[in-house]
Amino acid sequence: MTFAISIPPVNREAARAARERIDNLTKPVGSLGRIEELAERLSAIAGGLPSTNYERRAILIGAGDHGVTEELVSAYPSEVTLQMVGGFLGQLAAINAFARMARAEVFVANFGVAGDLPQHDRLIDVAVARGTRNFVREPAMELAHVDRALLSGMRAFAAIRERVPVEIFAIGEMGIGNTTSAAALVCALSGAAPEDVVGRGTGINDETLRRKMVAVQSGVTRCAGADWRICASEVGGYEIVGLAGAMLAAAQERIPVVLDGFIVGAAAMLASRIEPAVLDYCIASHRSRELGHALVLRELGLQPLLDLDLRLGEASGAALALPLIEAAARMIREMRTFSELGVSAAHASGAETARA
Amino acid sequence: MTFAISIPPVNREAARAARERIDNLTKPVGSLGRIEELAERLSAIAGGLPSTNYERRAILIGAGDHGVTEELVSAYPSEVTLQMVGGFLGQLAAINAFARMARAEVFVANFGVAGDLPQHDRLIDVAVARGTRNFVREPAMELAHVDRALLSGMRAFAAIRERVPVEIFAIGEMGIGNTTSAAALVCALSGAAPEDVVGRGTGINDETLRRKMVAVQSGVTRCAGADWRICASEVGGYEIVGLAGAMLAAAQERIPVVLDGFIVGAAAMLASRIEPAVLDYCIASHRSRELGHALVLRELGLQPLLDLDLRLGEASGAALALPLIEAAARMIREMRTFSELGVSAAHASGAETARA
Repeated sequence: MTFAISIPPVNREAARAARERIDNLTKPVGSLGRIEELAERLSAIAGGLPSTNYERRAILIGAGDHGVTEELVSAYPSEVTLQMVGGFLGQLAAINAFARMARAEVFVANFGVAGDLPQHDRLIDVAVARGTRNFVREPAMELAHVDRALLSGMRAFAAIRERVPVEIFAIGEMGIGNTTSAAALVCALSGAAPEDVVGRGTGINDETLRRKMVAVQSGVTRCAGADWRICASEVGGYEIVGLAGAMLAAAQERIPVVLDGFIVGAAAMLASRIEPAVLDYCIASHRSRELGHALVLRELGLQPLLDLDLRLGEASGAALALPLIEAAARMIREMRTFSELGVSAAHASGAETARA
Repeated sequence: MTFAISIPPVNREAARAARERIDNLTKPVGSLGRIEELAERLSAIAGGLPSTNYERRAILIGAGDHGVTEELVSAYPSEVTLQMVGGFLGQLAAINAFARMARAEVFVANFGVAGDLPQHDRLIDVAVARGTRNFVREPAMELAHVDRALLSGMRAFAAIRERVPVEIFAIGEMGIGNTTSAAALVCALSGAAPEDVVGRGTGINDETLRRKMVAVQSGVTRCAGADWRICASEVGGYEIVGLAGAMLAAAQERIPVVLDGFIVGAAAMLASRIEPAVLDYCIASHRSRELGHALVLRELGLQPLLDLDLRLGEASGAALALPLIEAAARMIREMRTFSELGVSAAHASGAETARA
């Protein structure tokens, strides 16, 4: 199977023009720090000054189960994936509360939950299988399933876009065991050592952490020298691969993608191995407390906006960052330059100005 | 003059009850990090679970001018204060863009601008004088003006409250030269050394920074051993003292106060010397890039929510944090506990759970 992925390059000239405008807005040069960088990035993606405040927001939570939970690597049993998906659809989970704050619509894609989900208008059923196999014993999924999960992600994005005229696309996940799969995939793709990546996930104790490390190491060993497709089949998860597909689809349509935490970071790393240009469309919402996330962000070359000690997933951090994106767009679209307003600017761009 | 300030203690029992509820919400214990702490703090202030999502938001920008600009300590001339206030009222500045994002109403209080401001329904004229005197040569203001500026701040809060049923109150400032005044006040009140506090403000060069340091040192020297009222009269600014008064008034009414950056931090330090309980009502929105801000936050015992390299003022950082406060309130009000939902919780609170 081949993929017709063609991500247009972002517009560097638009980013430069945005920077010039930002430097002439009625404020000291550089004084809005990261918000200014964000406006530059949005301009590069938009190919000019953004024509929107990014208020049409969709959140996609990719869900899947993991055979590696047999190794007792998680604090929660697999059934919780199904239960939490029910919570998302019932509007009762953390992400629903945060999405109401951010005025974003929440969709769940079933990429591989090990159980029966009810039909629901917010549930996109693109499941490839009922959970992965235990990657300590055998490949997590067939090679063909990697391709199918990628396509499932693309279909999920398309399905959301039919429902919502998406201007910004936030991505999160749910899947008991998926920090184990994500850690193995990150190590396999980046060459990082498991001890620098394997973390406590939902909050496991030292003994469980040791089992998780052993599991990750055994999976990573099988991936030595392998390409992204084999790595994904050996240790990946359906929601991780599916979300990589969704990101690629969004970037192809020039929609900015807001990444949640560690697992979504692993999906972004996979997507970048398929098409590196996807990362130019990605915005890192936060740095989570999960051990490997900082490493993943460095590898991706993304600097997070928030650092709030989150480690929940569900797109919770991505939702919290959505207002900052609106603020960046409003800054560059709604503020006026010194010359537009006739405010003293002599001191704003001359020798007095230090950009520390 | 005496002040009838009586700030009710926050409710520690309500904070404990909030923590217990948060620990039982359908998510791993502690997994929403700083958002959970924020919900605890809001509960302590509310005296129980918050009954609101804090969507009725007012932003107060205190404005004033500073005689110390004669010492050439700023990159901008004093006239810019007046011009920027015009920008706030005309809805054209950064804070207006951010306030539209945060759906907050912006008010400006003139505590001591050196110029004529037009009448405007968003401008609260409680000016005590037309700018401070140059504190390098003489006290910035008379002792009686300290008391008047505090009362002006209280009046400004009352005036806003008549207009908006304020549920959360964000505070910012505008005043060319006010990082110099704020730095001197912080050093005078805390005993910190000027070299640890004096920063580049709007973006000054090394030569201007040296002049600013000398100015601050000369002001601080005159404050040795003095109480808060004398410190404020020696080196304070009308907007700094006024905002301290506004914070005290808000805390008295049990309204949470969202602090912007360094100058507002200096105002909070002054307010805390008048009535330490005010700090229990304060939420630090962000850590700015201004050198002394981290020190001020440590002194206040407040941990900032955001760290976005901001150094603008105007309440810009405070506005950006308002959605996080809504998120915290929605989390604790709208999420359900494991027992309420019948989701497996056995693993959520037992031996498996490590709170790192």
